[in-house]
Amino acid sequence: MSDVASSPPPVSVLGLGSLGSALARALLTAGQPTTVWNRTAGRADDLVTIGASQAPTAAAAIAATEIVVIAVADEAAVRGVLGSAAGELAGRVLVNLTSGTPEQARSLAEWATAQGAAYLDGAAMSGVRLVGRADALFLYSGSAEAFTAVEGTVSAFGSAAHLGADAGIASLYDTALLGVNMSLLTGFYHALALVGSAGVDAREFAVVATGYLPFALGLLADHARQTVQGQYPPDEGTLDVLASAVDHLVTTSARAGVRTDVPDGIRALVQRGIDEGHGEHGPASLVEVLG
Amino acid sequence: MSDVASSPPPVSVLGLGSLGSALARALLTAGQPTTVWNRTAGRADDLVTIGASQAPTAAAAIAATEIVVIAVADEAAVRGVLGSAAGELAGRVLVNLTSGTPEQARSLAEWATAQGAAYLDGAAMSGVRLVGRADALFLYSGSAEAFTAVEGTVSAFGSAAHLGADAGIASLYDTALLGVNMSLLTGFYHALALVGSAGVDAREFAVVATGYLPFALGLLADHARQTVQGQYPPDEGTLDVLASAVDHLVTTSARAGVRTDVPDGIRALVQRGIDEGHGEHGPASLVEVLG
Repeated sequence: MSDVASSPPPVSVLGLGSLGSALARALLTAGQPTTVWNRTAGRADDLVTIGASQAPTAAAAIAATEIVVIAVADEAAVRGVLGSAAGELAGRVLVNLTSGTPEQARSLAEWATAQGAAYLDGAAMSGVRLVGRADALFLYSGSAEAFTAVEGTVSAFGSAAHLGADAGIASLYDTALLGVNMSLLTGFYHALALVGSAGVDAREFAVVATGYLPFALGLLADHARQTVQGQYPPDEGTLDVLASAVDHLVTTSARAGVRTDVPDGIRALVQRGIDEGHGEHGPASLVEVLG
Repeated sequence: MSDVASSPPPVSVLGLGSLGSALARALLTAGQPTTVWNRTAGRADDLVTIGASQAPTAAAAIAATEIVVIAVADEAAVRGVLGSAAGELAGRVLVNLTSGTPEQARSLAEWATAQGAAYLDGAAMSGVRLVGRADALFLYSGSAEAFTAVEGTVSAFGSAAHLGADAGIASLYDTALLGVNMSLLTGFYHALALVGSAGVDAREFAVVATGYLPFALGLLADHARQTVQGQYPPDEGTLDVLASAVDHLVTTSARAGVRTDVPDGIRALVQRGIDEGHGEHGPASLVEVLG
């Protein structure tokens, strides 16, 4: 039980906003020695109550552990906090879960490397509420050695995937998946408005939609493969057939008094695909129209 | 084993296109006595080989069984086939799996009822390929008594849900879910184009997206409930916050040389939500902007 090799390594968490607090709580729940620091010290009180050590400065927190997690407002805040303690970074693994752009992540990776730290950029994909559960997804990119070193630690936050050595990739995935998520949600909102016009209870429709959509999710891997191969078999229908179906969706929506913004956008995209010669191809050919 | 009460009732299938053939095959696989008819008789040959009875006319097929499934090209074809055999319909349960509009379904329900038949309208939500598997989803609406009478039979096709007495509702769900499905797919295609611009393999992104999206599906029931209550707590962020995030998606896409049609559409919708006073509300408030 006291075997040093199996003891969880101590971790510091810089920034105790909603995400940072949840991360520190997850580490403590997992039994990892955790040092916390926040610009406003009072934010640490609840965490100290459940076992966290509070550091008086960011530099002290960084000096206390080899693994440093930072979750603050934005890139400027990251630079402010770490810049005040740059002399302490050598030999640490820095895990940055602050939201930012791919360019910011690459720039921070370069700066941290110059200080002698290994840099991992991360994105909390499932919001704050699920932190600490296996169904919370965290994406990381940057130093592969750093990921190996912290994988056991960050598993306290949720499922962890390392996407490659380019520190900007986790942020790019985050941004791309926001688009997928919001496309799904706006499509769902349109559908709620449409069925609602016929008196359908939104909750009943949600049950059916939630049961149906895993079928659509099951198409994604196949459609991705099609784009790699540049071949778009019309197994689930051609763009020409889809155009008629979406026309019907537009007409049905308009008749029901529902705004047609969402299906109009889809219809315009399908038309561009047809205009560019993909009328007989499956819908994944739209990637060529967008790219 | 020979108990008459537990014997599966005989079924007729009118129309042996790709869907009708798959339906007949699923019935035969489930051990149900199946009579088939198609305008072009040769289409029945394979089914006869595995046990189907072939009827010489649609009227003969209808006369042979109490449960009649029809899957033909469109509403006009349904009226053509059934009109030629209207005298045989009294006392039958008619299950129409032909694609059509809610209005067409309601009109056919009225006509079939006038002939003394019970009418169910159905939508094959998972295409043809999955027919006969539990993960194929079929939606039905129309006579509740008819659904009870055929539920055991149509379970051979896949999972079956009855949505209500209004025969048009299954078609409306079908249309609405097409929009959700295509919104998801176009969002995914945009994401593939975006991450592809950074050299990410589409297949690797698909694995992450497929693992991530059940999180988004998990939001649907809650957002539907919010629309019923007319309250949109910003648990996953406000429209104002979302606007910045989507701006970032648009900028990142444009810099990567990816067309911004998909995020532009989302951004415009979010802006309308903000303009109509929902800036501090969660994203499900967009249903009020669309409805």
